[in-house]
Amino acid sequence: MNPLPTDNLDELFRFVYSTVQSAGAKSLDYFRSGLSVENKALPGKFDPVTEADKAVERRLRELIEHRFPQHSIVGEEFQPREGATNNDYQWLIDPIDGTRSFISGVPAWGVLLALLYKGEPLLGAMHQPYLKETFIGLRDDQCPQAWLFREQLEKGQPLRVSSVESLAQATLFSTHPEIFDHIPGAFDRYQAVAQRCRLMRYGGDCYCYCLLAMGQIDLVIEADLQDYDILPLVPIVEAAGGVISTWSGEPLRSGGQVIAAATPALHQEALGVLNEAH
Amino acid sequence: MNPLPTDNLDELFRFVYSTVQSAGAKSLDYFRSGLSVENKALPGKFDPVTEADKAVERRLRELIEHRFPQHSIVGEEFQPREGATNNDYQWLIDPIDGTRSFISGVPAWGVLLALLYKGEPLLGAMHQPYLKETFIGLRDDQCPQAWLFREQLEKGQPLRVSSVESLAQATLFSTHPEIFDHIPGAFDRYQAVAQRCRLMRYGGDCYCYCLLAMGQIDLVIEADLQDYDILPLVPIVEAAGGVISTWSGEPLRSGGQVIAAATPALHQEALGVLNEAH
Repeated sequence: MNPLPTDNLDELFRFVYSTVQSAGAKSLDYFRSGLSVENKALPGKFDPVTEADKAVERRLRELIEHRFPQHSIVGEEFQPREGATNNDYQWLIDPIDGTRSFISGVPAWGVLLALLYKGEPLLGAMHQPYLKETFIGLRDDQCPQAWLFREQLEKGQPLRVSSVESLAQATLFSTHPEIFDHIPGAFDRYQAVAQRCRLMRYGGDCYCYCLLAMGQIDLVIEADLQDYDILPLVPIVEAAGGVISTWSGEPLRSGGQVIAAATPALHQEALGVLNEAH
Repeated sequence: MNPLPTDNLDELFRFVYSTVQSAGAKSLDYFRSGLSVENKALPGKFDPVTEADKAVERRLRELIEHRFPQHSIVGEEFQPREGATNNDYQWLIDPIDGTRSFISGVPAWGVLLALLYKGEPLLGAMHQPYLKETFIGLRDDQCPQAWLFREQLEKGQPLRVSSVESLAQATLFSTHPEIFDHIPGAFDRYQAVAQRCRLMRYGGDCYCYCLLAMGQIDLVIEADLQDYDILPLVPIVEAAGGVISTWSGEPLRSGGQVIAAATPALHQEALGVLNEAH
């Protein structure tokens, strides 16, 4: 049973929707415009951070602090905020996931927000301001829900994964071959799965998991993710009927190596191939 | 000097814009919906063709035949149509470029249309119906023009490539590693360039060339393209100030191996690396 921080589920959805919309609007001032890119990584490593990142996170924090002053907040860009009275609830922010897509003009990036309870993702949202798409998922034992809202909250479409059960029928996505570079052997293990799939494409960042929740693709395999990259997507995938775990099949409670599949059968087959080559 | 088939340039732009819009609207009936995918390739090769492809090409042909009955038409899906009186003008159609993006729910595909004069691309258009974006370019010695129209023809933004002149500053895009598979050594030559770039991403199909024309990315390198995949994009890239050629530096008059760059200096540096490893 997952306890919500409010009795009014409708109000919680409305809060999350309006919060990511409001914050996401800040990013459009910077998308496809003359963009100042800071480089916070070591020389030679390209890890762009934009003004947009900071503007979005600042706005998310303002709105969350105002509505839920007792909760803690952890984001990519600023120092964590301790909750005033209750640290069981934590909001986790990735203001712009997919900064490489962002600076390249490709609308596959997103504003990510999760509400965790005792470290478990309860509710997650992905908002793509250019496409005007917002994906929200709620993990709930009784009544899981996942929705795509386009332009307005009143017209949501329920999200439902595909029924694909085998790699031979599956479309696999991953952001980029380089994400496997830091773990010895990881790319070969990934390739062993990819070669058995009907179709494999790169690109997508957080949007991959939303395509999975929509039933458009069937499998996502990635590595080297941060907790704020992936925990907001867990409720979206799971509430749409999908399965998401680490490469060892454990529940996701932090970043790392991730596999998300439309069905338990596909998840099992892909995990088997990932790990037999290991 | 490029002769246009009408004295009224404004009317020609209006015709091309309304034609790709009208045809593109047909595709949205099939995008992200329960989709029937025919397989026209050999068993084991996945080359999806959708009903959308046929519906879009049928509509493009209707509108072109009505307005320019004397021109010939060549498209991906149907038999070529001989022009009634004048074969110097040919319309070249790729109803849905990027069918793999299409069936995966990723809005990087596009409706492509070119007007060729004696085999040279004069005018080209790329329309992305889900994003409501239309890119049109006109190659003209006196006054080249390239525009992005969003939602309406009245509010066009002029397209202009970036000023990036070196690989070390460049963002490189390509659709997928597999597109180099058919040419021995091509992937290694591609990688030699990629390793010198600031950033390299996969994904995009025809949208890559539009990102280049917008100044968002700086370099696109691909192989194994058909003439209808690439000739409609030549006027967009060139009229935005970019350089596009074969891997030997020859002008593009058919498909094959393609390199498009924001500036002549970047084009030369990339060509040098592509061919020194060769």
